[in-house]
Amino acid sequence: MSTPSLLILPGDGIGPEGMGEVTKVIDWFGAKRDMPFDVSEDLVGGAAYDAHGTPLHDDTMAKAQEVDAVLLGAVGGPKYDNLDFSVKPERGLLRLRKEMDLFANLRPAQCFDALADFSSLKRDVVAGLDIMIVRELTSGVYFGEPRGIFEEGNERVGINTQRYTESEIARVARSAFELAMRRNKKVCSMEKANVMESGILWREVVTEVAKDYPEVELSHMYADAGVMQLCRWPKQFDVILTDNLFGDLLSDAAAMLTGSLGMLPSASLGAPMANGRPKALYEPVHGSAPDIAGQGKANPIACTLSFAMALRYSFDKGDEATRLEKAVEQVLADGKRTADLLGEEGVQPVSTSEMGDAIIAAL
Amino acid sequence: MSTPSLLILPGDGIGPEGMGEVTKVIDWFGAKRDMPFDVSEDLVGGAAYDAHGTPLHDDTMAKAQEVDAVLLGAVGGPKYDNLDFSVKPERGLLRLRKEMDLFANLRPAQCFDALADFSSLKRDVVAGLDIMIVRELTSGVYFGEPRGIFEEGNERVGINTQRYTESEIARVARSAFELAMRRNKKVCSMEKANVMESGILWREVVTEVAKDYPEVELSHMYADAGVMQLCRWPKQFDVILTDNLFGDLLSDAAAMLTGSLGMLPSASLGAPMANGRPKALYEPVHGSAPDIAGQGKANPIACTLSFAMALRYSFDKGDEATRLEKAVEQVLADGKRTADLLGEEGVQPVSTSEMGDAIIAAL
Ligand SMILES: CC(C)[C@H](C(=O)O)[C@@H](O)C(=O)O
Ligand SMILES: CC(C)[C@H](C(=O)O)[C@@H](O)C(=O)O
Repeated sequence: MSTPSLLILPGDGIGPEGMGEVTKVIDWFGAKRDMPFDVSEDLVGGAAYDAHGTPLHDDTMAKAQEVDAVLLGAVGGPKYDNLDFSVKPERGLLRLRKEMDLFANLRPAQCFDALADFSSLKRDVVAGLDIMIVRELTSGVYFGEPRGIFEEGNERVGINTQRYTESEIARVARSAFELAMRRNKKVCSMEKANVMESGILWREVVTEVAKDYPEVELSHMYADAGVMQLCRWPKQFDVILTDNLFGDLLSDAAAMLTGSLGMLPSASLGAPMANGRPKALYEPVHGSAPDIAGQGKANPIACTLSFAMALRYSFDKGDEATRLEKAVEQVLADGKRTADLLGEEGVQPVSTSEMGDAIIAAL
Repeated sequence: MSTPSLLILPGDGIGPEGMGEVTKVIDWFGAKRDMPFDVSEDLVGGAAYDAHGTPLHDDTMAKAQEVDAVLLGAVGGPKYDNLDFSVKPERGLLRLRKEMDLFANLRPAQCFDALADFSSLKRDVVAGLDIMIVRELTSGVYFGEPRGIFEEGNERVGINTQRYTESEIARVARSAFELAMRRNKKVCSMEKANVMESGILWREVVTEVAKDYPEVELSHMYADAGVMQLCRWPKQFDVILTDNLFGDLLSDAAAMLTGSLGMLPSASLGAPMANGRPKALYEPVHGSAPDIAGQGKANPIACTLSFAMALRYSFDKGDEATRLEKAVEQVLADGKRTADLLGEEGVQPVSTSEMGDAIIAAL
């Protein structure tokens, strides 16, 4: 195979700082593990808007379709809050998800042992936690039509549409069951089938797909009960399967619970390309954190672990992914903390680049 | 004024047990505080389905429209899981909400001091917590049209519609600001204006309504960030204002965080009736808990405190409401615990009716 290609889209806020450290890691893998990558970089979000008046230039979109994997930092910031909806930074990210058809968003919610005390939850509730949320990412209320703000009588009405076809549900369900097979063989599917017909169809299709995975134990939960159970005893879950909007809230809740928010990566995967690799975009779960941007305070670990997910899911290098994950754990166990992780007695924060260097050293 | 009227709808699961204790409390207020109520009782949910083949009989609906306040227990249970969507127990509750036009759902998330250790969160994160979630209850994706499961090409598609008019948003926003004026004068409004046009309209209208309440500090948060912040540091909030679906998840998350789930009441309020009282329905936040139903294990406190909310919001008896709330606190401080609250060393559970009797004694 030819050298695999990566497109880096640092985006806004702390995105560029995080991705800067990832570039070091990529270089390390090229130099020390004989795994060169063909890396290019481009703009997304507010940065793209500033340069081109659009949060994602068509050329960038085309490049994203060509490469083996996209690594994205973060998008958004107060500077862009008053832009028209159609050119907000988020639209760039949403366009990538939609046009690359990245239907399966994998969000591991893991609690790093060294960080369990950062959780607002009690240590025994979160220590050792390792769940995987599979969120549908290209449909539902995020993209359904009709949508917009319309005149009706003498007032306006805001409309969005939740829409799921059977095949959209089936393909993301299949991703969840495949993952469960390599984990603890449990899938909990969440919707509001007691209130929404789209949830009824969701439940039906997931139940049907489950028949192909007799070893996997399937359960169903209403999404409101789901968020409760996540807060109460998250370790009851292995893989959680849910739609785009519920997944947005549930995965953020799960991420926050771990106390490891600045550490959590995500993978968004689509169908296999001609070379067998899935269309793929990797990004941290955290946002652009404009308040600390440009100050060397950002935690580059979520971006780094997103690259580890790329090694695993795009390049079939599970061992190398584990190597990188172990290096990160090592650095945390050694007591290295970026500013988002202060609180322990006598700990001085390291900067973004010091953290990146420590990871390289641990590798 | 004539004797105020109450319609009790015990519903399913532990609903009847909880409401049984409330009846004792109502009688106590009649006998000892010279506050008689004209009480009638009827069926809702699965219980109504069993009797009439519908989760809410038209006669019951008519009665609910006439009385000064409805007290509801809970609906639902596995027995009804395979019923057609249109006759599921939940439809009875949703019909009440919709036809009584109970647009403002008030859900206090309070942590009872004596119970702070039951939370999965650290004590300092939740002790003393007292926030109020105002959830829109008659519109949004719960009721929007079109909805259903349709054929499209050679597959089915599940559709629901999120719909909010300006006036629907404005009236519930007004409820939130009014409440904030009597509390800590902060409202945080939550939506997904970065993704949904209905969220943009929501934010715009709430901002407009806020102008009538210059003393109240208004902030906006995306709902995913909102659930994160609830998990991280819930005490930052006073009143949270949100839509029907986000409110479903956010209020359940908040309730679970307090560790006091079996204790939390809610009020659903509509427009004033001819006698000046708002249309109103009061119910616990918890569900029907079919697994423990009929065993005397249910905690009747959420139902009891729902009646306290009725005293405050329907009958303008804030002092009497406080009296009842203090009695509940007293009983908890004395160490009385129903089975949902075990875990402390050497504590024996009291039954549902023992808890009810203890509350009466404390009154
Ligand atoms: C930035 C925003 C559009 C996005 C979403 O809502 O999906 C984010 O919250 C996420 O979860 O990736
Ligand atoms: C029972 C169900 C229909 C209801 C809802 O989704 O609103 C419940 O979860 C609630 O929050 O009151």
